[in-house]
Amino acid sequence: MEIGFLGLGIMGKAISVNLLRSGFKVTVWNRTLSKCGELLDLGASVEETPAAVIKKCKYTIAMLSDPVAALSVVFDKDGVLEQISSGKGYIDMSTVDADTSSKISEAILAKGGDFLEAPVSGSKKPAEDGQLVILAAGVQALYNEMIPVFNVVGKKSFYLGQVGNGAKMKLVVNMIMGSMMNALSEGLILADRSGLEPKVLLDVLDLAAIANPMFKLKGPAMIERNYPPAFPLKHQQKDMRLALALGDENAVSMPVAAAANEAFKKARSLGLGDLDFSAVHETLEAAKPPH
Amino acid sequence: MEIGFLGLGIMGKAISVNLLRSGFKVTVWNRTLSKCGELLDLGASVEETPAAVIKKCKYTIAMLSDPVAALSVVFDKDGVLEQISSGKGYIDMSTVDADTSSKISEAILAKGGDFLEAPVSGSKKPAEDGQLVILAAGVQALYNEMIPVFNVVGKKSFYLGQVGNGAKMKLVVNMIMGSMMNALSEGLILADRSGLEPKVLLDVLDLAAIANPMFKLKGPAMIERNYPPAFPLKHQQKDMRLALALGDENAVSMPVAAAANEAFKKARSLGLGDLDFSAVHETLEAAKPPH
Amino acid sequence: MEIGFLGLGIMGKAISVNLLRSGFKVTVWNRTLSKCGELLDLGASVEETPAAVIKKCKYTIAMLSDPVAALSVVFDKDGVLEQISSGKGYIDMSTVDADTSSKISEAILAKGGDFLEAPVSGSKKPAEDGQLVILAAGVQALYNEMIPVFNVVGKKSFYLGQVGNGAKMKLVVNMIMGSMMNALSEGLILADRSGLEPKVLLDVLDLAAIANPMFKLKGPAMIERNYPPAFPLKHQQKDMRLALALGDENAVSMPVAAAANEAFKKARSLGLGDLDFSAVHETLEAAKPPH
Amino acid sequence: MEIGFLGLGIMGKAISVNLLRSGFKVTVWNRTLSKCGELLDLGASVEETPAAVIKKCKYTIAMLSDPVAALSVVFDKDGVLEQISSGKGYIDMSTVDADTSSKISEAILAKGGDFLEAPVSGSKKPAEDGQLVILAAGVQALYNEMIPVFNVVGKKSFYLGQVGNGAKMKLVVNMIMGSMMNALSEGLILADRSGLEPKVLLDVLDLAAIANPMFKLKGPAMIERNYPPAFPLKHQQKDMRLALALGDENAVSMPVAAAANEAFKKARSLGLGDLDFSAVHETLEAAKPPH
Repeated sequence: MEIGFLGLGIMGKAISVNLLRSGFKVTVWNRTLSKCGELLDLGASVEETPAAVIKKCKYTIAMLSDPVAALSVVFDKDGVLEQISSGKGYIDMSTVDADTSSKISEAILAKGGDFLEAPVSGSKKPAEDGQLVILAAGVQALYNEMIPVFNVVGKKSFYLGQVGNGAKMKLVVNMIMGSMMNALSEGLILADRSGLEPKVLLDVLDLAAIANPMFKLKGPAMIERNYPPAFPLKHQQKDMRLALALGDENAVSMPVAAAANEAFKKARSLGLGDLDFSAVHETLEAAKPPH
Repeated sequence: MEIGFLGLGIMGKAISVNLLRSGFKVTVWNRTLSKCGELLDLGASVEETPAAVIKKCKYTIAMLSDPVAALSVVFDKDGVLEQISSGKGYIDMSTVDADTSSKISEAILAKGGDFLEAPVSGSKKPAEDGQLVILAAGVQALYNEMIPVFNVVGKKSFYLGQVGNGAKMKLVVNMIMGSMMNALSEGLILADRSGLEPKVLLDVLDLAAIANPMFKLKGPAMIERNYPPAFPLKHQQKDMRLALALGDENAVSMPVAAAANEAFKKARSLGLGDLDFSAVHETLEAAKPPH
Repeated sequence: MEIGFLGLGIMGKAISVNLLRSGFKVTVWNRTLSKCGELLDLGASVEETPAAVIKKCKYTIAMLSDPVAALSVVFDKDGVLEQISSGKGYIDMSTVDADTSSKISEAILAKGGDFLEAPVSGSKKPAEDGQLVILAAGVQALYNEMIPVFNVVGKKSFYLGQVGNGAKMKLVVNMIMGSMMNALSEGLILADRSGLEPKVLLDVLDLAAIANPMFKLKGPAMIERNYPPAFPLKHQQKDMRLALALGDENAVSMPVAAAANEAFKKARSLGLGDLDFSAVHETLEAAKPPH
Repeated sequence: MEIGFLGLGIMGKAISVNLLRSGFKVTVWNRTLSKCGELLDLGASVEETPAAVIKKCKYTIAMLSDPVAALSVVFDKDGVLEQISSGKGYIDMSTVDADTSSKISEAILAKGGDFLEAPVSGSKKPAEDGQLVILAAGVQALYNEMIPVFNVVGKKSFYLGQVGNGAKMKLVVNMIMGSMMNALSEGLILADRSGLEPKVLLDVLDLAAIANPMFKLKGPAMIERNYPPAFPLKHQQKDMRLALALGDENAVSMPVAAAANEAFKKARSLGLGDLDFSAVHETLEAAKPPH
């Protein structure tokens, strides 16, 4: 099975390495071609344009940094659209909004190709370990054909129906995550100000019915007021905004998520947008008098 | 080691059975003496008053239903105070507020006895399995002496310092839990109204960094709008109110917990106070009554 | 001074009547020409297309129902753009978003014309009484020339700088209004449930430093649970959403407005979007339907 | 009509001066007797204890600084209780909680006296101008007898039923006021950050249906970030806490007031409790990076 792969950033490289190691033939392209070197050493082929990859491979996966890049490799000169055709499948694993996905989907389908949006849950480490969770939506036949690939890339894949549902599912999960992060932050501060040891609170939480890997991972760093950016706060806040907008469209009142969103906005106003989203903790920690 | 035990409700019975099975000699008392039968069969002794238990045993544990009962066994006629004295320890595992704990503590210490508040995290099943988490505070020497007991009763015990800290720690944990329950509820509704399958959201959550036993346990029942009371909503809301009051005393702003608390109050106003606290989900299910 | 006037809905008719009565020569156009009859009787001229009005008049005012209508009279066949030119001014008093205003502004300026957005605060009664408040933004020279007109139409006009600022100012005012409506609603319910007479609360409020016409106007109807639509709830909620989005762009955290917005969304989910925005009161009146 | 008057702070002095000027005979007492000098000059009599005032006068009014002082003049040696008896009326205009009022009421009634709680809305200036609003509750016959006095002291008085209702009504009004203050603050910041002039927003608000004296009075100072304490923020936050607690008792969900309360708590955590309650504005103004 010959797989094309567009985009060799942190995530794309980890995924394509896993595919090569599992015996897939992989043809890669990256905007900066020099980044393809390591993949070449591992046995990949390289093409100079997205169009050339599509021409060569029955299935092509893209993993790009943002909606602009995702649109560019499809619609620009030498892009995906120039070679996509009936019998070929295009799978976009980038995290983009539902509108961008729909635009790409329509263009691919109009040329006779098949399309799947397949954003993932999980970052660098799970990508390297083949432990991603894949939220796929679009042409179901293509999803079925891609299962062997998804099995290598992730621990679990879901088929969610029409294009856009993958993006929506990620928003819902991230919204819950954002509210939980605020719940943890408020609890840590309340413990501290009430004469309890925040570290002990983390130990107690870790034994409770609400124990979860995020609290365990982020909690100790928050106590240290240390926020190295794994998932930047401005992206978390953007996802909460989009989730609230999705709720607005559907007349869903979500007061807790709304309160959490305002805390993230507060953090942005404090200049913390590029730190990890756990830096929302600073909105409670920071306590300085006015001039 | 002879242990006295006051209160044979669901929790008290499970704990005292575990103590007997682990080889402790146990003397029990219960307001309704007939409930002592099963313990007798397992080898326990029975006394007719709290005072008699205290007189007989160096250490006495209480596990009572509420602050009124906790105060009653100590201060009423034939109560703990009549026999407590230097060299004896009294450990109250009931869930009570910090004021009640302090009142009991002062009275015991005034008589020369040692006191430990030791509320637990976990309900019937963990109690039976010896998997409780114990949040102890008070006389540290007594805590140290009780470690062999706590090792049988729970999977982990914490010594948290001065009396009141056990109650406070429980409030902080329950506050975080209450915010998380609302986050889950909002996510389930947003998924449903946006055309996603709520059950699939639960599957995705269970693979995410925020996976936790509570979501796994309560989520499916919430989708069914089924709320059998494990932890009654009115008690959860009371704990959030008390946690917010603790924050107020210490000038801690907690907007997410405050929003969650208002949702629980909304649920109470809908007459759902005696259902499980997951029934807060009904405030979003909106105009439709629960089944 | 010859004034063109496009749009004879409730607001447009009231304004153009006032202009005629104050001695301005007015040429009107309306999509449904039959609605021009009453204006003809009062001395207005009528033209059959927006382009014809623009051709005839140095200044033309538009008062249209929504962004679609506002764009249509400018960009469609026989529209404003066909005749606008250097020396002519176009003043759009419709309530539209900043993007719509900017699009119209750019097109007018590109043709050499002058443009002013001038949304108003106030509805039917103030329009008839010449008591509107005008929030103008765009070409300042045109604003200065329009002052005699604004003096007839309103009790006060403001020049707010660049195009878009008129729309923004309306959003900010409506956001404050939405939070205040929720504050009143919560207070009325709290009074009622605490054994106080809500009508007496209104009397007390009317004597306090926070006394305002809206409380006086809407309060008694809210007590009656009567919400005839003066300003529909779905429009109020849209304005709160847009105001919160404006805050999001500028990293402004607004927790009270966010909580109020969720209450309006709750009301929408209860099917109250077409009632007056005071129907947010029903979200607290809870399980009972409005009459 | 001979009126006794206990407490000559800012409010008490203003009220008793008005009574003297309107022809009432007034006998005053103050903890610091030297403060009675000015009243003597205006024709008042002075007594050395609360008990002596009660003995002399059929009706005695108290205006004290807080619940502690209100309880002290009644229950301490030489206090009100020593001389109150059938045929005498005691009217407490201090702002105290419902519990304090009830305690005083019960003690007075037990001695055969009549009691009225009568907290006021309005501060120094309205007190001097006889423009207070009086929220009276308790013995209705006493209220009727006091109408001539209330007509001098205030512009309007209300009889609200059973003791405690005066305190509750004040809480409800202050809760609405607290939410409105936050609404104004958020609007001012949103205007500023969006390129609008906050001062112009105030001008526009003053012409809108939500125009009110508080916005007009506090708005300009908030723009200057100037918060001289007329009503201290910590007292406003206490009133919001008590109003939310009243809602909790009655299962009233009040998400907007809860969000406003958290903002006031945030302000307290920033050390602003002794400034005017408009200093909640600083929670939005303050924007500083973490260490």
